[in-house]
Amino acid sequence: MMPRSPGPGYAARMDARPALIDTLPTFSDLLDAAARIRPHARVTPVLRSDALDAIAGTRLHFKCENLQRAGAFKFRGACNAVFALDDATASRGVATQSSGNHGAAIALACRLRGIPATVVVPEGAPQVKLEAIVGEGARIVRCAPNMRARDAAVAEVVAETGVTLIHPFDHPDVIAGQGTAAMELLTTHPTLDAIVAPVGGGGLLSGTGLASRTLSPRTQVWGAEPDAARDAYDSLASGALITDRVPDTICDGLRGHLSPRTFTLIARDADGILLADEEAIRDAMRLAWTHLKLVIEPSSAVALAVVLGHPARFAGQHIGLILSGGNIDAASLSSLLA
Amino acid sequence: MMPRSPGPGYAARMDARPALIDTLPTFSDLLDAAARIRPHARVTPVLRSDALDAIAGTRLHFKCENLQRAGAFKFRGACNAVFALDDATASRGVATQSSGNHGAAIALACRLRGIPATVVVPEGAPQVKLEAIVGEGARIVRCAPNMRARDAAVAEVVAETGVTLIHPFDHPDVIAGQGTAAMELLTTHPTLDAIVAPVGGGGLLSGTGLASRTLSPRTQVWGAEPDAARDAYDSLASGALITDRVPDTICDGLRGHLSPRTFTLIARDADGILLADEEAIRDAMRLAWTHLKLVIEPSSAVALAVVLGHPARFAGQHIGLILSGGNIDAASLSSLLA
Repeated sequence: MMPRSPGPGYAARMDARPALIDTLPTFSDLLDAAARIRPHARVTPVLRSDALDAIAGTRLHFKCENLQRAGAFKFRGACNAVFALDDATASRGVATQSSGNHGAAIALACRLRGIPATVVVPEGAPQVKLEAIVGEGARIVRCAPNMRARDAAVAEVVAETGVTLIHPFDHPDVIAGQGTAAMELLTTHPTLDAIVAPVGGGGLLSGTGLASRTLSPRTQVWGAEPDAARDAYDSLASGALITDRVPDTICDGLRGHLSPRTFTLIARDADGILLADEEAIRDAMRLAWTHLKLVIEPSSAVALAVVLGHPARFAGQHIGLILSGGNIDAASLSSLLA
Repeated sequence: MMPRSPGPGYAARMDARPALIDTLPTFSDLLDAAARIRPHARVTPVLRSDALDAIAGTRLHFKCENLQRAGAFKFRGACNAVFALDDATASRGVATQSSGNHGAAIALACRLRGIPATVVVPEGAPQVKLEAIVGEGARIVRCAPNMRARDAAVAEVVAETGVTLIHPFDHPDVIAGQGTAAMELLTTHPTLDAIVAPVGGGGLLSGTGLASRTLSPRTQVWGAEPDAARDAYDSLASGALITDRVPDTICDGLRGHLSPRTFTLIARDADGILLADEEAIRDAMRLAWTHLKLVIEPSSAVALAVVLGHPARFAGQHIGLILSGGNIDAASLSSLLA
């Protein structure tokens, strides 16, 4: 658990990055994002379960981004960023790197805008996510499964073709778009005690913090991270951004690390990060299938896992959980159920 | 496919049953049901998928009763019937026979009303459904897996204890309650060309026809039935109610047969029954998991299976499909995915 206010060492580093601070999205950007994506994105339902409430000892409200277009919240940010481009820039096309959901989201957003998309995908990404990208008509470029290889491959595509890079999370318009999920949740559920969102690269958690800070300052904002990929937790605890780990988690969407931009926003707006181990994440996924009747991917289940793993912290509260996505291969689903 | 108007032989049988006609639910009963269940039941979301639309060549609108309380549309009818009882009758308790979903729904409705429930369950019912019944505090009585054994067992319970029998489908208040799903769907989607609902005992299809007939007479109403349990299809085709088959289908919720009451309503209000084989039902279930991110039980998938199996009939139309429930064991889910 981190304090909401960053320590003095952290403030000193902030002072050294005025350019970064100028590119942090604001609540006004979030309002623009909501208006921009409205014709394209779904207002996803918020579901609950008496059985899960009884297990958790809290009142759980699940914001079902697995039911978003392209099967994940990623469509919000991708759609916002793609439709924010001016016509001349957009016409040259868009590129991105993605373990899957952001890639499919960019591919869909580009198809809707009628512009070409190129997606750099690391080896080992789930087949269902690759098919979703190809299905939307995007071009796929493969790379090694680490952030450096991804960044290099996408830089090459940008240099060669003059397309615009839309990073999966380190982008103000992407972050603002992701924040619209919490905005919708807090609009229909204005008295939540806390919102819990998964954290990988930190785009969703940054946007969630941004929305909550203005719409409901009393609502706590917690990140949920696999213990096996706890770079965000350790980054916030130490005050220094950790980017050199190779995480080993079933949460394929949470293997990235924070950027300076998301690190800054999360340190400012979130109340902390909570961890869950792999077994707890599997259990949470099964509970979602059994009681919510929802297919969610492991990266989504971590939010439920941390709530169940911290009963004293959340006892008796109203908690909003962002179920971030539902893209999982039938084979993976089957093996996780066994 | 059956004609909407019953043949002359059928009308002759109708004349012989004035008592039955007097107990057919009306649209007014459906309005009462909607008001009665409003404080307890969920208004379930209607979801869609571009990918499924592309596969089907139609525009599909899924009414997600798997997201209803107790995981199935059955809660609508059970809740309506339980809350329609006068206080003195209700206080003696309720009994029913059910392969699972109606049992859990009655158990939940009785818990909400604060009265005792007894559920007669056939051997072989899915474990997850039994757990749901017990979890709501109802008493379970086991019987052999056929309708006659069920009816005998529940009659014994009623005779012994003076409780009120609420049949899973052969009950006006149950049928009226089930019709509220189509009522909600037609209220938000008033221009549907057709609604497709699974048919087992016929409560859901009867209620769906009742709702559609008044709210949207131009909307066709189709039943979806496993070919391996085609007693409703053959009953309507022959004009004589078939009750003596032992169906062998993965759709555990559709192994019952019509009653005279549901036979009458379906012959009057539905446009016909369409069939799907077991493999098509499995495929439809996988498609729902992949593209809708929903856990549905086989009995739900038959609606999607018949739409995909009759592309010429539905080409280019707006179709409402009632996804009736999502209660399936992890083991069954896993084996069906493999």
